[in-house]
Amino acid sequence: MSGARITLLTGGARCGKSRRALALAESYARKTYVATAQPIDDEMAERIMTHRSERGVEWETIESPLALPETLFQLKDDGRVAVVDCLTVWLGNVFHYEGAGAADARISEFVRALDGARIDLILVTNEVGWGIVPDNASARDFRDAAGRLNQDVARVADRVELLIAGIPMILKGEKR
Amino acid sequence: MSGARITLLTGGARCGKSRRALALAESYARKTYVATAQPIDDEMAERIMTHRSERGVEWETIESPLALPETLFQLKDDGRVAVVDCLTVWLGNVFHYEGAGAADARISEFVRALDGARIDLILVTNEVGWGIVPDNASARDFRDAAGRLNQDVARVADRVELLIAGIPMILKGEKR
Amino acid sequence: MSGARITLLTGGARCGKSRRALALAESYARKTYVATAQPIDDEMAERIMTHRSERGVEWETIESPLALPETLFQLKDDGRVAVVDCLTVWLGNVFHYEGAGAADARISEFVRALDGARIDLILVTNEVGWGIVPDNASARDFRDAAGRLNQDVARVADRVELLIAGIPMILKGEKR
Repeated sequence: MSGARITLLTGGARCGKSRRALALAESYARKTYVATAQPIDDEMAERIMTHRSERGVEWETIESPLALPETLFQLKDDGRVAVVDCLTVWLGNVFHYEGAGAADARISEFVRALDGARIDLILVTNEVGWGIVPDNASARDFRDAAGRLNQDVARVADRVELLIAGIPMILKGEKR
Repeated sequence: MSGARITLLTGGARCGKSRRALALAESYARKTYVATAQPIDDEMAERIMTHRSERGVEWETIESPLALPETLFQLKDDGRVAVVDCLTVWLGNVFHYEGAGAADARISEFVRALDGARIDLILVTNEVGWGIVPDNASARDFRDAAGRLNQDVARVADRVELLIAGIPMILKGEKR
Repeated sequence: MSGARITLLTGGARCGKSRRALALAESYARKTYVATAQPIDDEMAERIMTHRSERGVEWETIESPLALPETLFQLKDDGRVAVVDCLTVWLGNVFHYEGAGAADARISEFVRALDGARIDLILVTNEVGWGIVPDNASARDFRDAAGRLNQDVARVADRVELLIAGIPMILKGEKR
């Protein structure tokens, strides 16, 4: 385990996770935003632009839809924090481009990358398994993999927060 | 900000939110129940009647499917508490009658009405964004708007509780 | 109320509930695993086998897809703990074999069985009502019944935990 500090923020859709990530990153001198979403349609493009405009100009942005472990490895160790937003979309990209069968290996690879992280990381993820069991098998596979991803990342994280209606609840680590 | 006390209760379906709202209203001399649901079909009518029979005769009931800010403004300031049940159904009505495009303005209007509230309010809302991303764009828009609504109301609320299996968890405010 | 201790573990899909149940059962001399799932297709059979291999040989396994109250009643009172995994699947079986109309009576019967339990029980259930309202009425009925089940069981439980990303959050009972 390296000295880098890993924070995981989880929660449902539009619960204030990204805003919380930016707030936690506030005090760092250098900030990198690792975006996993791709502007594949107008709706997505609009969401990405909205998020980008909510961040300030002091942010460097890297798009990393798939090669997340490699991206983390390449970040300079210069007092920088990286916000990764978000893991669930990255996992969706793994499913889309590499298939459900690739998910387990990719998750393991990502968790190993976290273990070797040299800079502080703030990771945003989503809760997707609190509804009725989905009809189609692919959605079931996805929520299973997302659940495993969240558990595995939470295990190596120094701090885990659940966001509800914009309010952070500390699941792991000390209160700030 | 007025002296009125605002409580927000959130949670999934059938988690005891409405019952908790009634319990928190117990000590007030005068009680108004603001119902946002409309009996548009038999299933809904049955739910509404069940809820109404669970309350006692000491409750005044107002149906306010759409004009919620106006309804709140008209309530008499006579030691009364109003339970609004629920915000998510109200937002669904906004989507149904005025379209998704109207939601942002309506939410802002409602939050301003809360800011000017002269009586204590107990607001019930729903968590709807903890499942797999819905297939249809309209459902995605709705859960985004519902998430924004919950965040905005939580920000002005004095107290926020999450209900799980009937058990309240305090997200904001003091323990009682 | 008997002297038996009842623990309820709830949460979304793949949040670590089953693993937590096994960990809580660790210290008991005798352990029974009451499985409610039936291997009706390959996917389900695979999940069941995976779960079974994760438990050790010290576990006795009973399959009880429907007659859960009777199963609990027959367990020997010999310092044994029983893990029931899970209540939501049992309720799904009730819906499937007996219809939605049977759910209320079955839930009441199950809660009475808990009240008469002579051995410690660790019950696993699921949160299924935190997504968008399902389109079909049967799914809505199911999530309503599941919500009622969770509330009723939580009321008689000595301890309730919510699992999120593998991390238990205590909703009822003392911290361990």
